[in-house]
Amino acid sequence: MSVGGIRAPLLRESRPEEEEEEEVEVLHSEEEVGHRGHPPVGILGSGDFARSLATRLLASGHRALVGSRDPTRLPGGLFPEGTELVSQMEAAVGAERVVFAALFPEHYHSLVGLREALAGKVLVDVSNADGLGRGAEGSNAHRLARMFPQSHVVKGFNVISAWTLQTGAHDGNRQVLICGDCPDSKAAVVQLAQRMGFSPLDLGCLGASGAIEEAPLRAFPSWQGPILATLLLFLFLYGYGFLKCVLFPYLARGQNNFYQLPLETVSQTLPAVAMVTLALVYLPGLLAAGLQLSRGTKYRRFPSWLDRWLGSRKQLGLLSFLCAGLHVIYSMCLSIRRAAQYSLLNAAYRQVKAEVPNSWVEQEVWRSDLYLSSGILGFGVLCVLAITSLPSVGNTLNWREFTFVQSGLGYAALTLIVMHTLFFGWDMAFSPGSYSYYLPPLFLLALVPPCVVLVGRLLLALPCLVCRLAKIRRGWESKRPRTPPKDQEVGTTNAVAGDD
Amino acid sequence: MSVGGIRAPLLRESRPEEEEEEEVEVLHSEEEVGHRGHPPVGILGSGDFARSLATRLLASGHRALVGSRDPTRLPGGLFPEGTELVSQMEAAVGAERVVFAALFPEHYHSLVGLREALAGKVLVDVSNADGLGRGAEGSNAHRLARMFPQSHVVKGFNVISAWTLQTGAHDGNRQVLICGDCPDSKAAVVQLAQRMGFSPLDLGCLGASGAIEEAPLRAFPSWQGPILATLLLFLFLYGYGFLKCVLFPYLARGQNNFYQLPLETVSQTLPAVAMVTLALVYLPGLLAAGLQLSRGTKYRRFPSWLDRWLGSRKQLGLLSFLCAGLHVIYSMCLSIRRAAQYSLLNAAYRQVKAEVPNSWVEQEVWRSDLYLSSGILGFGVLCVLAITSLPSVGNTLNWREFTFVQSGLGYAALTLIVMHTLFFGWDMAFSPGSYSYYLPPLFLLALVPPCVVLVGRLLLALPCLVCRLAKIRRGWESKRPRTPPKDQEVGTTNAVAGDD
Amino acid sequence: MSVGGIRAPLLRESRPEEEEEEEVEVLHSEEEVGHRGHPPVGILGSGDFARSLATRLLASGHRALVGSRDPTRLPGGLFPEGTELVSQMEAAVGAERVVFAALFPEHYHSLVGLREALAGKVLVDVSNADGLGRGAEGSNAHRLARMFPQSHVVKGFNVISAWTLQTGAHDGNRQVLICGDCPDSKAAVVQLAQRMGFSPLDLGCLGASGAIEEAPLRAFPSWQGPILATLLLFLFLYGYGFLKCVLFPYLARGQNNFYQLPLETVSQTLPAVAMVTLALVYLPGLLAAGLQLSRGTKYRRFPSWLDRWLGSRKQLGLLSFLCAGLHVIYSMCLSIRRAAQYSLLNAAYRQVKAEVPNSWVEQEVWRSDLYLSSGILGFGVLCVLAITSLPSVGNTLNWREFTFVQSGLGYAALTLIVMHTLFFGWDMAFSPGSYSYYLPPLFLLALVPPCVVLVGRLLLALPCLVCRLAKIRRGWESKRPRTPPKDQEVGTTNAVAGDD
Repeated sequence: MSVGGIRAPLLRESRPEEEEEEEVEVLHSEEEVGHRGHPPVGILGSGDFARSLATRLLASGHRALVGSRDPTRLPGGLFPEGTELVSQMEAAVGAERVVFAALFPEHYHSLVGLREALAGKVLVDVSNADGLGRGAEGSNAHRLARMFPQSHVVKGFNVISAWTLQTGAHDGNRQVLICGDCPDSKAAVVQLAQRMGFSPLDLGCLGASGAIEEAPLRAFPSWQGPILATLLLFLFLYGYGFLKCVLFPYLARGQNNFYQLPLETVSQTLPAVAMVTLALVYLPGLLAAGLQLSRGTKYRRFPSWLDRWLGSRKQLGLLSFLCAGLHVIYSMCLSIRRAAQYSLLNAAYRQVKAEVPNSWVEQEVWRSDLYLSSGILGFGVLCVLAITSLPSVGNTLNWREFTFVQSGLGYAALTLIVMHTLFFGWDMAFSPGSYSYYLPPLFLLALVPPCVVLVGRLLLALPCLVCRLAKIRRGWESKRPRTPPKDQEVGTTNAVAGDD
Repeated sequence: MSVGGIRAPLLRESRPEEEEEEEVEVLHSEEEVGHRGHPPVGILGSGDFARSLATRLLASGHRALVGSRDPTRLPGGLFPEGTELVSQMEAAVGAERVVFAALFPEHYHSLVGLREALAGKVLVDVSNADGLGRGAEGSNAHRLARMFPQSHVVKGFNVISAWTLQTGAHDGNRQVLICGDCPDSKAAVVQLAQRMGFSPLDLGCLGASGAIEEAPLRAFPSWQGPILATLLLFLFLYGYGFLKCVLFPYLARGQNNFYQLPLETVSQTLPAVAMVTLALVYLPGLLAAGLQLSRGTKYRRFPSWLDRWLGSRKQLGLLSFLCAGLHVIYSMCLSIRRAAQYSLLNAAYRQVKAEVPNSWVEQEVWRSDLYLSSGILGFGVLCVLAITSLPSVGNTLNWREFTFVQSGLGYAALTLIVMHTLFFGWDMAFSPGSYSYYLPPLFLLALVPPCVVLVGRLLLALPCLVCRLAKIRRGWESKRPRTPPKDQEVGTTNAVAGDD
Repeated sequence: MSVGGIRAPLLRESRPEEEEEEEVEVLHSEEEVGHRGHPPVGILGSGDFARSLATRLLASGHRALVGSRDPTRLPGGLFPEGTELVSQMEAAVGAERVVFAALFPEHYHSLVGLREALAGKVLVDVSNADGLGRGAEGSNAHRLARMFPQSHVVKGFNVISAWTLQTGAHDGNRQVLICGDCPDSKAAVVQLAQRMGFSPLDLGCLGASGAIEEAPLRAFPSWQGPILATLLLFLFLYGYGFLKCVLFPYLARGQNNFYQLPLETVSQTLPAVAMVTLALVYLPGLLAAGLQLSRGTKYRRFPSWLDRWLGSRKQLGLLSFLCAGLHVIYSMCLSIRRAAQYSLLNAAYRQVKAEVPNSWVEQEVWRSDLYLSSGILGFGVLCVLAITSLPSVGNTLNWREFTFVQSGLGYAALTLIVMHTLFFGWDMAFSPGSYSYYLPPLFLLALVPPCVVLVGRLLLALPCLVCRLAKIRRGWESKRPRTPPKDQEVGTTNAVAGDD
């Protein structure tokens, strides 16, 4: 695993491949430039980012005019050979079209004097937000645009680290998010980004700049909800197991089961969490299908909680897989535990004393082998699902394959895991001893959501519902029966309608 | 794991970053367009795909002219702000160059009236095939090209889902397959796709359109053969184990071993399948090398079954890894089983009754430790192999590293696994008891293919054969001895000649 | 796993999608070409690489002029339909701008006669190096540039295999490394590569050609150091365990512990190696921070050994994960071993004979459950770390998320693993019996580096040091106190300064 850390000093290595292009003269028309090298680009600021930007621009065949307030004060060796260290005004004037504002947003006001020199030019704002939630109008790019009404402000490059800029997008992320109000200026920046080896992605007008500036500050926005839900579920089920198996027996009979807390209770809670979470992955799809069926149209938005839930399925699925994986390791460690060895030794002692030559119980053997088998197979299917959710693997699947894997294999895994639990429970569910303190055993509780999902799925497989749902997803509406679609809808196969 | 499902409603969210570009006038020459924004693009059709396409086009700075048969009937809120809803004729005429045919292929005939308006324009067919195997001439794109002989039909974008279109290729697959007969029209579509943030891949002339249309319908074409082979192998070996260890003992001696079926027999069959499958990965390379050696040239095609086999090695290897992984989990669960606990308790009982204070058998300890050790190491090497076969990891390797991993580490894994099996078998192979019912034990059977492969590999490492094969792979032919290559062949290192 | 092997014969399949473009005439000005198809490209040489290059060029809409010394001698079927087989002189003259030198470097001299025909054209050198370490001036590209002083030599395409060239960059690596002295010529090659579906990456002037030529020959350059270090560490610790637990007891008391060598000693050595290696991942970050603190500036380079160490952290972390994974499998196999079964049976015998009905030791139960629990959780965190270090997963993280995962979760894993070891050791560290032969137990030895790292990390969390370090990383220097940064440094968040 690569580990974040101090990489700044690496930046200062002199790289042998830097270009020296003193011979390129200033070119002002793109036609001329076409065959003579790329146009000069201005950079206002002289920090790390400016330095890395200059390095990449030079490597891509551009001239880099780095404008500093006091260019003579800059130590020469910091910038790559070929960089032209000039005054801010010279950089603004000399730039053919694009000028990067590579300074802290709090110093933007120091550029006011360049307003005329920058008129008509493309001013690229590369800053990050200071904090989250300042709204669209409060973005740095908007502020810059208000300060320079005659320039075309384009937001971009802030998601790229100085490191990636300098070394080229060798193995890092190549994507550069861009937005701006002037399509033409954006096109220039897009082209520049492509020449520098990045993959620009246009997110629209400057209103998107707030989101782009905040992108590097967000910490797993799509994971926070699912992680919280899984954590609460774990705490609830762990607490339930603690009460039923540890605290109540202690209070009622003084039985000391506290040694079970670190491993045994965790190892019983994890599969329950995994099973419920996996059911939560497939439940919203069923709810959405039910809603479409009852509304008779797909052209009405779902409630926002359902939208969010639908968007969290991948994360829930992976958290379910994490719990299942931990459960597998925990279960395998059960036999290494000292407690297991002591139990076995004591059982051997009792067997010898009771003069029982053979303690074999055929039914128990079948039970344990069946629940282990179905559990292993279910986990194997979950592994395949997890692997196909890796971006590089999932991208090689077409829509049909993706559906087969995520829906077909997903329901197969859910079924196997329910079987695993049923075999585990065997006849325990019908023995009154399992309901001590009026609490049903944990596994029965955890079986409810997956069983609901499986029953719902079977209902949706009824032919009448299948037909109606397919019609709805091709655009049919029960209220306003359309004429048979003439100029309608290509792409049900590759459309997003999907299934459940 | 991300789960396929109902995503259509999400499409209707109004996105804040959509551009309003009412000010762009119609531009007809590309020179003019260069610095004023991108040219208007026509879309014929008004379904999901048309909607998503319009969204993406607007976000990339294009005008989107959506042509409907009856534009007044369309609910306004469906399309993003800035879309121009016009008649089909207006869309065809207004489009600068590229017009998308975003309707079902069965409604193509409704466009016939636009034939003159579309003359000279690039007509993009985005449809999927209805079914597999209609041949090259039967593709939708060919049909469209015959209907519009004066337009340039380009196939493309069908592999992109409406979802990806709408949100931008954020994390989905960016690749767009394109083909067409007019290079210039293709270039226009390629450029458009790049501006929209996709990675177009040109597959040649319109003859490739059949394959492109069928791409989204295919379900794991490269996996079907290997999965079938592995499944048949599993069934055969499982049946063999069932006969030898369960059915025959029951018939002959009434011994009830049926409890072994769910777990023990599976757990013995899986490693045999894994080993044979891994041998099948390396066998075709040896056969191909042998064929080249005996033919004395590399310029003759292999028989098609060998070509197919060579192309399935990655899949076979991953299936072998899956079986090996399941075998590891099964083996680790062996000691959690009730059956194992009963056996141990009964053994303890017998030991106490027989008054044996120490049952330690040094030879058995060595045997079990050696076969576990070699098995674990072999599985570790297989894990490294499996990880490097992930697309994102494999892409970072150069040819030499790839060969080292897949060939070097692969043979290391095969050798370790053969050792694992030999240590497991130890002297069992020489005891008559293992050959009950005249059937050799399963592991002996499964050892044959890997041993054949290892012997074949050693033969090919003989210096005389190594030299001859290297010469053949650099282009030398035994029949037609060439003059020493003058203007020949760069790139044996990066060539596809490869090795075995 | 995909397996390197004989793929050459596949190259000769006739592909249906190849274009026939006999109608394209020779065009010499790019303006004209713009709307008529791409310009003709010359290829000197007729080997595998030339053939694959021609195929890809034709598929991208270019004409391919393959120049051979004796075009009549070439078997026609080898090249795709549409290729124009001409003399070398015709290929050099007919090419619009770009000519590929697709022959072995040792035959470059045969091109001398084309010097005038190639004047002013872009000559692309696609060769690989013959061996490593010939220096910058000794590269094939430099040699070619000296032979053709009037042509513009650009290095590139050598990292692409003929296979990828021919089939298009479907799933292989799309990156093409390029360098050259003339920015304009490079731009032409970059554009050509993009049209062919590749992602060109400009590495600067021709001085980089040596590195590019050697790229395909390198075998895991970044892995060699870390693998060597881990291997030496393993050997040292294994030797230590061998001496302490096997050899010395044998020499002193004739105790035969040799059966421990294949599994038990390995299984004790692996966690020690994993723990020390994980500490080595975080140690250089602390050293670098300490160095910056003591120097009071970030603008001085680290010693080169520290730079190399910082650059090896990802590899060290993954090797640590590999050892930890093997340790998990080994530990789980401990209870399947025959030795474990014999020990258990003998213990049962002794318990029965000693008439102890209950051998339960509460403290031992707690110890084993606690160390298993913390070990499992630590391994789970390591798994998450390993998954995020996959390129396709890591690329989806922004800098803040990456830091949280690699630094936050990394220290969490280290802490859990230290706890795992401390629980394992429990009171063993204070019993004189553990120090037999004056050697401390292995786990105590292995605890030293992680404890040093954790203490160092806590020291760096002292508020005074945190502030000073943050200031230094924003550019402050203790020696030359700057004026408050005015035109300074954008991008501390996305800068490379990072943290530890």
